[in-house]
Amino acid sequence: MKKKTNELNYLTTNENAQYFECGYSCDNALFLKLGSDKFFITDSRYSLEAQKILKDASVVQSGDLITSVCEILNKTSIKTLIYDPTQITVSAFHKLKDLLKNSIELFPKPYFHQYLRILKTEDEIKKIKKSQKLNKDAYDRFADFVNRSGKSLSEKELYYHAQQFLTSYGEYDLSFEPILGVNENAAKPHALPSKKDKLKRGDLLLFDAGIKYKHYCSDRTRTAFFHKEGIDFSKKQKFKNNEIQKIYDIVLKAQEKTIELLRSGMSGAEIDGIARGVIEKSGYGKYFIHSTGHGIGLDIHELPFISRSSEIVIEDNMVFSIEPGIYIPDHYGVRIEDLVVVKNGKAQII
Amino acid sequence: MKKKTNELNYLTTNENAQYFECGYSCDNALFLKLGSDKFFITDSRYSLEAQKILKDASVVQSGDLITSVCEILNKTSIKTLIYDPTQITVSAFHKLKDLLKNSIELFPKPYFHQYLRILKTEDEIKKIKKSQKLNKDAYDRFADFVNRSGKSLSEKELYYHAQQFLTSYGEYDLSFEPILGVNENAAKPHALPSKKDKLKRGDLLLFDAGIKYKHYCSDRTRTAFFHKEGIDFSKKQKFKNNEIQKIYDIVLKAQEKTIELLRSGMSGAEIDGIARGVIEKSGYGKYFIHSTGHGIGLDIHELPFISRSSEIVIEDNMVFSIEPGIYIPDHYGVRIEDLVVVKNGKAQII
Repeated sequence: MKKKTNELNYLTTNENAQYFECGYSCDNALFLKLGSDKFFITDSRYSLEAQKILKDASVVQSGDLITSVCEILNKTSIKTLIYDPTQITVSAFHKLKDLLKNSIELFPKPYFHQYLRILKTEDEIKKIKKSQKLNKDAYDRFADFVNRSGKSLSEKELYYHAQQFLTSYGEYDLSFEPILGVNENAAKPHALPSKKDKLKRGDLLLFDAGIKYKHYCSDRTRTAFFHKEGIDFSKKQKFKNNEIQKIYDIVLKAQEKTIELLRSGMSGAEIDGIARGVIEKSGYGKYFIHSTGHGIGLDIHELPFISRSSEIVIEDNMVFSIEPGIYIPDHYGVRIEDLVVVKNGKAQII
Repeated sequence: MKKKTNELNYLTTNENAQYFECGYSCDNALFLKLGSDKFFITDSRYSLEAQKILKDASVVQSGDLITSVCEILNKTSIKTLIYDPTQITVSAFHKLKDLLKNSIELFPKPYFHQYLRILKTEDEIKKIKKSQKLNKDAYDRFADFVNRSGKSLSEKELYYHAQQFLTSYGEYDLSFEPILGVNENAAKPHALPSKKDKLKRGDLLLFDAGIKYKHYCSDRTRTAFFHKEGIDFSKKQKFKNNEIQKIYDIVLKAQEKTIELLRSGMSGAEIDGIARGVIEKSGYGKYFIHSTGHGIGLDIHELPFISRSSEIVIEDNMVFSIEPGIYIPDHYGVRIEDLVVVKNGKAQII
């Protein structure tokens, strides 16, 4: 996508893409960009709010969004329209195609809007930093709360209280449903919090959470040991069980080495290979069952992906997570995650 | 869909459909039903949990869900597979089609899984009733809280506290993000809570909320006046402003008359017409800017829709909302919503 954005024509169904384009979004809208003209097409539930917020896009109130898009398109002389086939449904696409009657070529470009947003501006980086700062503060308040609590709390109770700290009691939205697992539940990378499993001293706690600050996501994972003296979410952890300590140290080494050695010019796959290499060399390769990281911004998961198959070449101003993990089914799991921004060719932890 | 479910072959990408089929779902899975055989295909983050929970479906761990679906399909002799074109993306569909190489006819059936779930069982109705009961209790606790609060709270603060009551402090999930609007913000049917607009005595408050009980949604809207003596969410409301009272009484009449007169055998459009008729006759037709209601179950919005264009014929054991509204832009909005179940041809309020 070498053309300038204001020379492109595209349609997006995605809320975050819409927010990026015009500073507003809702759960039933289409956004159309035709050169420098922007159209926000939504139904009557949202059009009043949209009209008040949107400055440089025309708000079109519609009972049938795709029909309205086609009415706009049929009045123009554009020849091609980019769409994201990983976002639009088969029904919506066929309706669009039928109504346009071949007057415009529909050009599929998977993830095109994430490509447009892959290099973050300084303002976006600032927002992600602030988001992660608020997220870290919530981890600290959560640890204090656990340490001050007189009784053992269930995962579900911990989950509830964690959310209060993360959202600062309703001030911020979560960037995703936090993941919280005690001992063997930490072996499930996306465990659901249980009512019966309680956190006691001597337990392992995996906690993966993030918030949104001005729509920009944060994301962080720590695996911590609940000592007699309490719990903290620093990266320095001492476990009683030697096997867990061994695994923890391998994951930590994989995470820190990846952050230290990654460079702009490498592909996502090469960076994934650094973390995977450390873990494989230690003999735990088959227990590292997900990718090393993902881009983050308005979407919690966006380009660039740091995975075995990612061909994206890393550049300055890309922001992504580095989060290797080892999961021993029915026993325990360890994951350590930070966000990094690439500056001067190297990773800086956010 | 006259065939019995266990004679059908279908694929669904939808989480609630998957939960209905096998009692588990997650955000990256495909569910395949081939006659009486069930397959739950998911990635390694979820497969461990899925294996533990799923009793009568085979769990297939996969790094590429659609490829795995095709591998299963290519080993069978089935001729057709139903899919929902309103759910599947263009990319996923093309991949499926390419991998199957015309060996199986893909049959588009919009909303097919909602049709399978449109008549609720007694057990489902019980769960929706319990969900709405918990929801109503939360409304009462929320009103008490507002009445006891010494200071004026902003919409955002009210929103936060309402969520605590709705979820019973983390015990239940919300069925959707509550809608809460004071005075002119109530004129936006899906307003976002603001920090600056505070609820004071003499104000109108519109509150639309629901929770999930064992995955089943509730949904309820009340528009209430904050008197000197306090606020309550009953349907009997006395507003100071005569114009608002007039509008409130019209909406209430539309809602109650619709519930009283609707019968099995009517179409969704006919039922919508009862509510719309009352409001149009009163001269406010153009301010009733949405449908009269929607089905509810595992999805917060599902079949049958009670809208101008809904041809679905209502039957016993369908569950849906009746929620007419009048919205005067920049002034105020009124909506009143209850859920009903059709029994012996008539609506019973849940």
